[in-house]
Amino acid sequence: MTITRAACVGGGVIGAGWVARLALNGIDVSIFDPDPEAKRKVGEVMKGARRAYRRMATNGLPREGRITYAKSIAEAVEGADLIQESVPERLDLKHKVLAEIDAHAQRDAIIGSSTSGIKPTDMQSAMKRPQRLVVAHPFNPVYLLPLVEIVGGEKTKKKHVERARELYASIGMKPVVIRKEIEAFVGDRLLEAMWREALWLIKDGICTVEELDDIMRYSFGLRWAQMGMFQVYRIAGGEAGMRHFMAQFGPCLSWPWTKLMDVPEFNDELVDLIATQSDAQSGQWSIRELEKIRDDNLVAMMEALARGDGGKGWGAGELHKDYVKQLGKAAKGSKAARKRKAESPANTLEPKSGKG
Amino acid sequence: MTITRAACVGGGVIGAGWVARLALNGIDVSIFDPDPEAKRKVGEVMKGARRAYRRMATNGLPREGRITYAKSIAEAVEGADLIQESVPERLDLKHKVLAEIDAHAQRDAIIGSSTSGIKPTDMQSAMKRPQRLVVAHPFNPVYLLPLVEIVGGEKTKKKHVERARELYASIGMKPVVIRKEIEAFVGDRLLEAMWREALWLIKDGICTVEELDDIMRYSFGLRWAQMGMFQVYRIAGGEAGMRHFMAQFGPCLSWPWTKLMDVPEFNDELVDLIATQSDAQSGQWSIRELEKIRDDNLVAMMEALARGDGGKGWGAGELHKDYVKQLGKAAKGSKAARKRKAESPANTLEPKSGKG
Repeated sequence: MTITRAACVGGGVIGAGWVARLALNGIDVSIFDPDPEAKRKVGEVMKGARRAYRRMATNGLPREGRITYAKSIAEAVEGADLIQESVPERLDLKHKVLAEIDAHAQRDAIIGSSTSGIKPTDMQSAMKRPQRLVVAHPFNPVYLLPLVEIVGGEKTKKKHVERARELYASIGMKPVVIRKEIEAFVGDRLLEAMWREALWLIKDGICTVEELDDIMRYSFGLRWAQMGMFQVYRIAGGEAGMRHFMAQFGPCLSWPWTKLMDVPEFNDELVDLIATQSDAQSGQWSIRELEKIRDDNLVAMMEALARGDGGKGWGAGELHKDYVKQLGKAAKGSKAARKRKAESPANTLEPKSGKG
Repeated sequence: MTITRAACVGGGVIGAGWVARLALNGIDVSIFDPDPEAKRKVGEVMKGARRAYRRMATNGLPREGRITYAKSIAEAVEGADLIQESVPERLDLKHKVLAEIDAHAQRDAIIGSSTSGIKPTDMQSAMKRPQRLVVAHPFNPVYLLPLVEIVGGEKTKKKHVERARELYASIGMKPVVIRKEIEAFVGDRLLEAMWREALWLIKDGICTVEELDDIMRYSFGLRWAQMGMFQVYRIAGGEAGMRHFMAQFGPCLSWPWTKLMDVPEFNDELVDLIATQSDAQSGQWSIRELEKIRDDNLVAMMEALARGDGGKGWGAGELHKDYVKQLGKAAKGSKAARKRKAESPANTLEPKSGKG
């Protein structure tokens, strides 16, 4: 199952990342974003994404999908079989936007919300056909990181969850369907736990943001990027495996290692402390430069993992390998289509994906 | 400043990892571990470490240091300028072992404890010369992951912290000196936060251990391996940077995303659930096979990062590049020394590092 035409409502960092992934897969995308700067901002993200895809798509890239800017949600969603909502995290705004998408979308279009934490059931109340709403929560940069958490609400039909899974997989992603609906799902529950703990460590002066980042990236960050937490701990248990590990480290849960579990007060002083330390750590690079470094690293790491497990590919690398192949196949497809078109006076392309 | 001779007290997963890093840097290591299986277990780790180093040391490796098994702590620490303690995490045991190390170590030897969380001040009470004790907390696999958290206690002298920093850096590590002594330091505070949250997610049936691992390794794991958390969020703030990000996501701290902050009950049911899911996820590989896959991935990812930032190297990759060069230089050094020795009837080598 593939996406013929997509709509993105909201073109911020996440929305533009969706636009980039879709367009670079050869899919036409229509955007609605009331921000007068939207076109420029999406353009910047596209520039970065094109650069990353040219680097990683060693077998070629399909002809880029056409990106258009709609004047209304109704115009944007017309004819789209996937509609991705990426507006700010306010339930009232989500309700308003989803109601409008719902009113104008094709009957069987999948509506995916990029929310990091709002439960789909809480968003469905505003919709007349809520059965096709799923949360499809991606990770920045959306055009490179493959994960998408798929979460259905009380009114979501199973077949739409399954269809969403297939649609997102068709653009090189790794959909993980979350079994029970909770706030913040799995990804942001883990991220929040880490963030909360990190804020304490900075606030209490135990380390700076640069030291904390170094502690992550020179150690367990490298473990988690390839195996995740449980598989790593299985190994740490040594020859006795997981049960041994659990027996050995379970008791720490009641040690003072976990005593600071309340939420640190989030005030101007803390914001200042972190922003100042962050400037000291990264001020020598612009955000655009950091994005390039990040994207190059992500591609290089996925390529490295693509050679893992004796050449079979491992984790994100295994998927990356398939994705590069898929883009290459699509490249040949669009080349052949362009050739056919050039040879024939009549446009024989599917009208929706034809770019005149 | 370099290490001439090292002693490792405790030869489990962590202790053996230290032995491997030291020996592969050409340093003689004496081990004390009362476990009758110690020699076999250290041998297994050495086998894995040699394999990884052969792969990564593209400029050659120094002649391996000699590994000897001592009958007592006194015998092990004799003549060592670095003594690494890696015994189980029980304060009474640490006291007993450190007192014995202290009594027999060279006056100016650095004593590093591998503890993940016990405060150095709490360990120093058993020592007569506590000023040279630091926590030097590494991450598994010690022979590949570069991070070591250096923590001084109330009685640790600054110059010994500085010397420890230099000694660990000399064997390719990234020492980060922790500014204030707290239980679990920085690394294990972060790991515990993540672990606690993960246990909730599994216990509540939100996802399986395999799904949770996938959620990490197809998304933020790849981000953290190269940049850590704060630098990543700086980028997420977009053109407005860190302050914008903080303003946008700060309020989530008081949302229900963080409501489950107490400690899940750690009972047999939870251990069973996790061990069973872990078998389903990884049962097809032995621990040794998983270790090989992990080590290959770690080396490949560090090599990938060594090409980062336009070839300058980035994060763990920048260090990796230097480490490979350093091993290569040492390789030439030991080759030259072997040649000199072969040409001369008298052994002109420093007796401590001569291996007959």
